[in-house]
Amino acid sequence: MTNQRGLLIVLSGPSGVGKGTVRAAIFNEKDVEYEYSVSATTRQMREGEVDGKDYYFVSREEFEALIEQDQLLEYAEYVNNYYGTPINKINETLEAGKDVFLEIEVQGAMKVRERMPEGIFIFLAPPNLDELEERIVNRGTDSRGVIVERMQKAVEEIKMMQHYDYVVVNDEIPNAVKKINAIIQSEHLKVDRVVDKIQSQIYNYFQEGINQL
Amino acid sequence: MTNQRGLLIVLSGPSGVGKGTVRAAIFNEKDVEYEYSVSATTRQMREGEVDGKDYYFVSREEFEALIEQDQLLEYAEYVNNYYGTPINKINETLEAGKDVFLEIEVQGAMKVRERMPEGIFIFLAPPNLDELEERIVNRGTDSRGVIVERMQKAVEEIKMMQHYDYVVVNDEIPNAVKKINAIIQSEHLKVDRVVDKIQSQIYNYFQEGINQL
Repeated sequence: MTNQRGLLIVLSGPSGVGKGTVRAAIFNEKDVEYEYSVSATTRQMREGEVDGKDYYFVSREEFEALIEQDQLLEYAEYVNNYYGTPINKINETLEAGKDVFLEIEVQGAMKVRERMPEGIFIFLAPPNLDELEERIVNRGTDSRGVIVERMQKAVEEIKMMQHYDYVVVNDEIPNAVKKINAIIQSEHLKVDRVVDKIQSQIYNYFQEGINQL
Repeated sequence: MTNQRGLLIVLSGPSGVGKGTVRAAIFNEKDVEYEYSVSATTRQMREGEVDGKDYYFVSREEFEALIEQDQLLEYAEYVNNYYGTPINKINETLEAGKDVFLEIEVQGAMKVRERMPEGIFIFLAPPNLDELEERIVNRGTDSRGVIVERMQKAVEEIKMMQHYDYVVVNDEIPNAVKKINAIIQSEHLKVDRVVDKIQSQIYNYFQEGINQL
């Protein structure tokens, strides 16, 4: 039996919604069947980080070579450091029949959608905007102007949800984890993903004759 | 908040696959959130059966009136008795925001699909055809000719799976139940089903002003 290609699962959402926490909870479960897509970065490795696990730590020259060779699904530059998603590893894993899990901010997700529209795009939404605002206000470090700006950015990002396939509200982490797992399981059961396998089974059945008759 | 319309969930599959057993297992769980669609029939009520629960027991005249008035999603006649799915109750339940669960044979499901294409159509498949054949052979009551005929019918029904949305293999009942529940949960998380609600939330947020600022 040939392996069915794995699914690319993209978890995204506005900053502050808790993407990283939900992703960590998913990968803390036993029997996780997804492979986490490790990003490449030019920033310094921090204590406790492992190359190839937390990030692929590369030089600026290496990163720019990846860009040049179109080897990144998406990339961005923050505070003078590059961050990007290497496409080769993802394709290898998908080809091997394993699902790849990518956690990424909204703009990056939209770039991934252009390159791999067959991915499953899940938008993690805050329970409501008041709560998101409260969270930002309670940090206490931001000026009124910065808070308004952040909220406007969050609202813009939430409007992008229409370009996703699914929306999961992050009310309680275990709920969100359960819903994301249900989405992935359900996607594997879509008829287009199994019909070939079952039809070849029918063919084999008739090739062999109706066994016991 | 207005209720979101419920989903029509249609579980179908070839005869002998175990649709009734899986459906019963789903409705035996606690916290079932679906309403079972009760069929109408003209056959005699059997001991232990409850009108309105197992079936709506109606007279032949009443049933034919339902046909005439186009009040049935689908119907069929077996051994001189009518069996059919009343559409009114289904629509009321869906309007109330509750999911309706319909378990039905393949031809009936295809008729339902014509009338209510927005339904979620789940095909329950046997783990493999040899096993289905074994089950039919082991009944011991059927002649060779009948067995071949039944297997051919099963194969024809299995070919209909391409007209469904999802395929669940009935290898173990608890597995099948889990998968069906995941499909339904996942369907409720599709972006088209939640985007209006969240966009009106954003609108309200700005109507009220950014509260605490």
